[in-house]
Amino acid sequence: MQITQRTAVLNADAVATYRRTGFFLAAGLLPADVVGELSAAAAGILAQDSPRRITERDGVTVRSVYGPHQTDPVVARVCRRPELAGAAMDLLGEDVYIHQSKVNVKAAFVGDQWEWHQDYIYWLKDDGIRTPDLVNVAVFLDEVTEFNGPLTFVPCSHNEGVLAATEKHGVPVGYEDAPQWVSTLTADEKYRVRHDVIARLATAHGLVSPKGPAGSVLFFHPNILHASSPNISPFGRTTLITVYNAVSNPPTNTGNPRPDFLAAHGTTPVRIIY
Amino acid sequence: MQITQRTAVLNADAVATYRRTGFFLAAGLLPADVVGELSAAAAGILAQDSPRRITERDGVTVRSVYGPHQTDPVVARVCRRPELAGAAMDLLGEDVYIHQSKVNVKAAFVGDQWEWHQDYIYWLKDDGIRTPDLVNVAVFLDEVTEFNGPLTFVPCSHNEGVLAATEKHGVPVGYEDAPQWVSTLTADEKYRVRHDVIARLATAHGLVSPKGPAGSVLFFHPNILHASSPNISPFGRTTLITVYNAVSNPPTNTGNPRPDFLAAHGTTPVRIIY
Repeated sequence: MQITQRTAVLNADAVATYRRTGFFLAAGLLPADVVGELSAAAAGILAQDSPRRITERDGVTVRSVYGPHQTDPVVARVCRRPELAGAAMDLLGEDVYIHQSKVNVKAAFVGDQWEWHQDYIYWLKDDGIRTPDLVNVAVFLDEVTEFNGPLTFVPCSHNEGVLAATEKHGVPVGYEDAPQWVSTLTADEKYRVRHDVIARLATAHGLVSPKGPAGSVLFFHPNILHASSPNISPFGRTTLITVYNAVSNPPTNTGNPRPDFLAAHGTTPVRIIY
Repeated sequence: MQITQRTAVLNADAVATYRRTGFFLAAGLLPADVVGELSAAAAGILAQDSPRRITERDGVTVRSVYGPHQTDPVVARVCRRPELAGAAMDLLGEDVYIHQSKVNVKAAFVGDQWEWHQDYIYWLKDDGIRTPDLVNVAVFLDEVTEFNGPLTFVPCSHNEGVLAATEKHGVPVGYEDAPQWVSTLTADEKYRVRHDVIARLATAHGLVSPKGPAGSVLFFHPNILHASSPNISPFGRTTLITVYNAVSNPPTNTGNPRPDFLAAHGTTPVRIIY
């Protein structure tokens, strides 16, 4: 697909780092006024009762709200900024559309963990997206430290592809069966990665938790193995995550798609707003 | 009390740091052969079924074993080494006895969190120890990183004393009522610190998680406010914690004491083993 005429946001080194390690942190990339506006918008989004909103296991604390780029004008605009959508084009090498977005919250003291998982298998299995040519773009709306439950990656693990691909006799090697059917909208992971696989990869490649001030933007590959601890600190951590997909890589599960707040029903390319 | 004739382990700067911040980390203080011997002993201690052993909320994973200095000859000897008992004397300024010991485990993937708390209130309320002239001495038996659920301190919070001391109308200001009576042998804290108090102190003083290789020794004050995250990593974290008390500060609850594996029934001074 032809790339929209524009100036690159990420230089060749950044793109190479992303491809090699599966992530790239651009510390303080977004201007402070944009972060302020976005934080205010996020507070409003989190306060609205909606089927898009899911809670922690306590049933009270908000954990995520899906699809805010469809409902909130500030999020809609920020998701089209060059620092997000333009950078996604730099990483994917073509035009992109927004497949999914969410505001994730790690509330002070009570924000719970996310289990080890890869993202792509959901988009493959649930939406029929045939290649992992998507990118997660996470905007830090609060400072991320070692204390407030940062995303933790196994660097380079995206190079393993979908771990379940190495299945034997119909049983995925990399994944445990979920104990029961669990919605992708709960705190539990439907596609869990086996502990021995995580241990092997973390021993080989180590662990990294990218940290930075509010306004930092973290790009990560849909196949990177990641998790995050609960937030035991008094400092909340809110993140806007937008998932951009290459327009040449549309969902093929169009007969019985997930609701569009979980998986876009159209693939209209993003027009960058400068 | 007269101090046993010996050479100081901690210099004046280390002692001053401990007094000012409430903790001091001596990275790699114990020789590797001692760490190896202690790790092997800990594995045996953790494997023994006993009333001294408590599990995580899952009822399976071992969380702590109390009083190993009373049952295991290696632990008994290491607890009398100058790097532990001698350093405790440096910090307390007099002879010490071992009031409590425990092997704590943060098992890979499943080791759960410890809620925010201070230690001294237990020794005050349960054992009748009248002043906080005790010191926790934690030996790292594994490398401690940001990923395996390290102890997290609010530095300088020990200067607040027992937070419940600022009670009004009979209600401790610093502590919430526990929802029900909970044993000091469970993963829940009986004396919990109010979230607004933790937030105020952490905002004023920040948070710190001391990290270091196996063999590091972490000294911390019984009134320092601390917690730890679950261990979501594939790397376990085992710690031997010995609580030394000044011999001039004996338990006064001698009529109905806790079992001696939780609180020593005698105050015989430790003789350093060189």
